[in-house]
Amino acid sequence: MTSNSIELITSSWLNSDIDIKLQDLIGRVVVVHTFQMLCPGCVSHGLPQAIKIRKLFNESDVAVIGLHTVFEHHDVMGKNALKVFLQEYGITFPVGIDKADENSNIPLTMQAYNLRGTPSLLIFDRNGQLKLSHFGIIDDMVLGSIIGRLMN
Amino acid sequence: MTSNSIELITSSWLNSDIDIKLQDLIGRVVVVHTFQMLCPGCVSHGLPQAIKIRKLFNESDVAVIGLHTVFEHHDVMGKNALKVFLQEYGITFPVGIDKADENSNIPLTMQAYNLRGTPSLLIFDRNGQLKLSHFGIIDDMVLGSIIGRLMN
Amino acid sequence: MTSNSIELITSSWLNSDIDIKLQDLIGRVVVVHTFQMLCPGCVSHGLPQAIKIRKLFNESDVAVIGLHTVFEHHDVMGKNALKVFLQEYGITFPVGIDKADENSNIPLTMQAYNLRGTPSLLIFDRNGQLKLSHFGIIDDMVLGSIIGRLMN
Amino acid sequence: MTSNSIELITSSWLNSDIDIKLQDLIGRVVVVHTFQMLCPGCVSHGLPQAIKIRKLFNESDVAVIGLHTVFEHHDVMGKNALKVFLQEYGITFPVGIDKADENSNIPLTMQAYNLRGTPSLLIFDRNGQLKLSHFGIIDDMVLGSIIGRLMN
Repeated sequence: MTSNSIELITSSWLNSDIDIKLQDLIGRVVVVHTFQMLCPGCVSHGLPQAIKIRKLFNESDVAVIGLHTVFEHHDVMGKNALKVFLQEYGITFPVGIDKADENSNIPLTMQAYNLRGTPSLLIFDRNGQLKLSHFGIIDDMVLGSIIGRLMN
Repeated sequence: MTSNSIELITSSWLNSDIDIKLQDLIGRVVVVHTFQMLCPGCVSHGLPQAIKIRKLFNESDVAVIGLHTVFEHHDVMGKNALKVFLQEYGITFPVGIDKADENSNIPLTMQAYNLRGTPSLLIFDRNGQLKLSHFGIIDDMVLGSIIGRLMN
Repeated sequence: MTSNSIELITSSWLNSDIDIKLQDLIGRVVVVHTFQMLCPGCVSHGLPQAIKIRKLFNESDVAVIGLHTVFEHHDVMGKNALKVFLQEYGITFPVGIDKADENSNIPLTMQAYNLRGTPSLLIFDRNGQLKLSHFGIIDDMVLGSIIGRLMN
Repeated sequence: MTSNSIELITSSWLNSDIDIKLQDLIGRVVVVHTFQMLCPGCVSHGLPQAIKIRKLFNESDVAVIGLHTVFEHHDVMGKNALKVFLQEYGITFPVGIDKADENSNIPLTMQAYNLRGTPSLLIFDRNGQLKLSHFGIIDDMVLGSIIGRLMN
């Protein structure tokens, strides 16, 4: 892995029995969708897009991972609330909980990648190199073309 | 009011300094949108439609009220979580919290109106008479025509 | 009929064996959708909305009529082309062809109602009185509420 | 070019001063959108998608070409009608007219590529090799990923 590809820092995982490391996904394109469960743009655009990516591409080619990067209203977006949210929205891919920082509202992975807010997308190539860090909504065709290029 | 128009039974209100009673809204068409903050159909369809109704019609003609009828996952859809939800989704019309029943998961107004789930719409005419109780998604044009007929 | 409700002036009709007169529709709400078959806004918004109105309301309450008001590119939007267009787009309600003016590109009904372009909607109440003349796109809920009010 | 990549057979072109040959586009990914101007699926999905491809990718990487493959209602979808259609719908990429066959309703390129109807997409790689022949609607993300893979 290169210096761009800082490991995910998580406190726990849902929809996965094990802690997932980017290191373990080398060989696949990796799409990390960072979100907050009460963020409207995540619910209306980001998460449906992540679900679509999961459906369209083979797991052996493209890994899809959610990362719950809570930076506000921490008390109402805890693990139990997230668990209900994932169940209600039919999200079955692994979702990590970005580890809280005792001295900041911004959790640790979000800090490490300098993410500006939610939704944000991180895309890594098959060698684990960060190729895209995108804040906000992104068009399906654009995103498809980026993933397509990295699949080769 | 007629026997159809049972009063809303609420434990508290958000976006309103006072308890709202159907009785006080006589003279206006009243649209009560019942929802749960973690119900996907409410978030994608019901609440945007309620917001649209609020924008399109005069408050003096049509009252729009939300009612949070939590019947599952009560621990993660409490008042504090709802407050954040309303703020994040830009919902400014009054939202009552359907009063919990100590002996049932189904809250009291939901029981009184025999609602099947969320989202559900209750529409009352200017005389406070229940004219529509609808579970699930309803088309904008259909809903507009129902409100239009009741406005006369 | 009032002075507002000038009769439709047509050269012929498709999807109808007879010439349709507003006068004959007294007793119903009448929705006249004026369009051109090569007008993008008509194809994407106006005509689908007219089809939806036809499906949602009873014919005995609401009459839906199309009016082909060609004011440009007359040579490629003649009756034969329109016939194919209606068939391909599954439009089964009656469509009149606005009568051409020998001295103007603007056809006669379009002139009589001072229509600015396509799509335009004309809505008449049950007494044949013009209640709405609207140019451009109109929201489904707004349109539903207008029709609803006139249905009483 | 390979045997898969039969040359386009056209009677004339709009939005281009010259006859366009696939042979001349070697080096670029080529997207050929085949359509009929009165085909609803082409107007609502295929052509907006082709316009989007044109906007999203550089012309030096991806060529977008329309092909008017009229196989029914030839009398109302002639060159003059098509010219108006392209203007009204803001289509500025080159559009070839598939050459009519004197003995068949199906034009010659459509026959050569065994196309089943409209809309159909033909996608060629940078070497002029046919990589996709798709009839009907295709998802933006899928299409983006196909183009992305071929861009490498």
